[in-house]
Amino acid sequence: MSLEVISKAKVCGGWHKQYSHKSISLNCDMRFALFLPPNASAESPVPVLYWLSGLTCTDENFMQKAGAFKKAAELGIAIVAPDTSPRGDDVADDEGYDLGKGAGFYLNATQTPWASHYKMYDYIVKELPALVEQHFPVTQTKSISGHSMGGHGALTIGLKNQEQYRSISAFSPITNPMNCPWGQKAFTQYLGSNKEFWREYDASELLASAQSRLPILVDQGDADNFLQEQLKPENLITAAKQSDSEIELRMQAGYDHSYFFIQSFIDEHIAFHSKYLKA
Amino acid sequence: MSLEVISKAKVCGGWHKQYSHKSISLNCDMRFALFLPPNASAESPVPVLYWLSGLTCTDENFMQKAGAFKKAAELGIAIVAPDTSPRGDDVADDEGYDLGKGAGFYLNATQTPWASHYKMYDYIVKELPALVEQHFPVTQTKSISGHSMGGHGALTIGLKNQEQYRSISAFSPITNPMNCPWGQKAFTQYLGSNKEFWREYDASELLASAQSRLPILVDQGDADNFLQEQLKPENLITAAKQSDSEIELRMQAGYDHSYFFIQSFIDEHIAFHSKYLKA
Repeated sequence: MSLEVISKAKVCGGWHKQYSHKSISLNCDMRFALFLPPNASAESPVPVLYWLSGLTCTDENFMQKAGAFKKAAELGIAIVAPDTSPRGDDVADDEGYDLGKGAGFYLNATQTPWASHYKMYDYIVKELPALVEQHFPVTQTKSISGHSMGGHGALTIGLKNQEQYRSISAFSPITNPMNCPWGQKAFTQYLGSNKEFWREYDASELLASAQSRLPILVDQGDADNFLQEQLKPENLITAAKQSDSEIELRMQAGYDHSYFFIQSFIDEHIAFHSKYLKA
Repeated sequence: MSLEVISKAKVCGGWHKQYSHKSISLNCDMRFALFLPPNASAESPVPVLYWLSGLTCTDENFMQKAGAFKKAAELGIAIVAPDTSPRGDDVADDEGYDLGKGAGFYLNATQTPWASHYKMYDYIVKELPALVEQHFPVTQTKSISGHSMGGHGALTIGLKNQEQYRSISAFSPITNPMNCPWGQKAFTQYLGSNKEFWREYDASELLASAQSRLPILVDQGDADNFLQEQLKPENLITAAKQSDSEIELRMQAGYDHSYFFIQSFIDEHIAFHSKYLKA
């Protein structure tokens, strides 16, 4: 598995780099971004926080707009930001911003025309960490976070792979995609109309049916335009109660769905993960 | 002078807002962005840091990518980020990224076809502060900073208006535009070929000919692709020695010309300005 460097820039004493590689899971060339803190070295490898972005994003949005590097450098945590879908001319797409490229929903698609490339679940859970751990001075210790569609990704992937991650956090996550327009559209297309197959990619369904051993932190702005129709954090809380799981949901007064919100609380999320990554 | 709100988002306890207004100096509609820290109110107005961006930028680059709000909120400083040139269909432009729209060079153009709109110097020095001080809970106490072409703007405007600003800082500034390709191209077009008229918009010329009473901080990455041909910080240091002015130039090892560099040191610039804004 080889990597090609696309860009590199020093930041906060560490390095931000973008790489491309041929993805086996996704059957296309993919790009991801990495922040390595200044203390990362072969002699002292660092843990990794995986960040999953939302609809329409690439590996760049979080890295350019979140302002996360100062705290990550201070705490000695690497950050990996993958793209949000397979890419390339032969990858199926849709005119909508919420389906196809930029909208992979972190699942393994089973339906035509999506199944040949849209395997973001396998990519995030298996291929990408293996690649990162092979090429960079990082440990196998990892946590996962994300925003909106990426918050859905972080919650579902974290809950389904509790042995692999130390902690989960999310900003403004789609908590119950089976019951919101974004999720219903995507799941119908990617997984087909049988809703039984949807449950394994729905954070509220997963959390209702099995207790989480992982610490979970969710921040949600109460001025978020998508709150009531698409995000529904109350459903996640109800689910957590059903399985007696612990989850901290913080409703943040006045904040919207943007990276200004993420920038406001990302330091607290990095500190939250640091506690468990270093435990 | 009336303002129209284009966007607003809560960030770090304060507010980021974009406004449009009809500019008299520039003879067109203009947009600017404002960060107001949480403690700003009519009863306790706050000082303002003006940020001037570089070539190709708008009011958005700094506000989205610099990660400046946490420190500005903590220290109680407002930030105003104007656009980098006049805008609109009837504003003269050029195919190059370094002339015309997005490349106003913070001067008052005297030549055809630029003179009818390109009066960024007047806009930044007079019109914009008057507008900001009329509409928002800020004091008349201000400092100025910027990046690249905006670093040139901050240095020249600060040096020429020392009674108006408390401190000046710059990231990777064009320090001696009379002696670099970007500056020579822009000044020939905007000011004509008589170089006598160029001196008043050249930071090194200004600093060589008159002592600065203001504290000046400059950060420059030594891995910046533009360092030798366009930026020439050594010329600014030579000029400061000629007039016995104080200036702190920090060469930052390994950093390039990007916002990753700015993000790495913006907190220190805000703290630097805060010391003088609150003195």
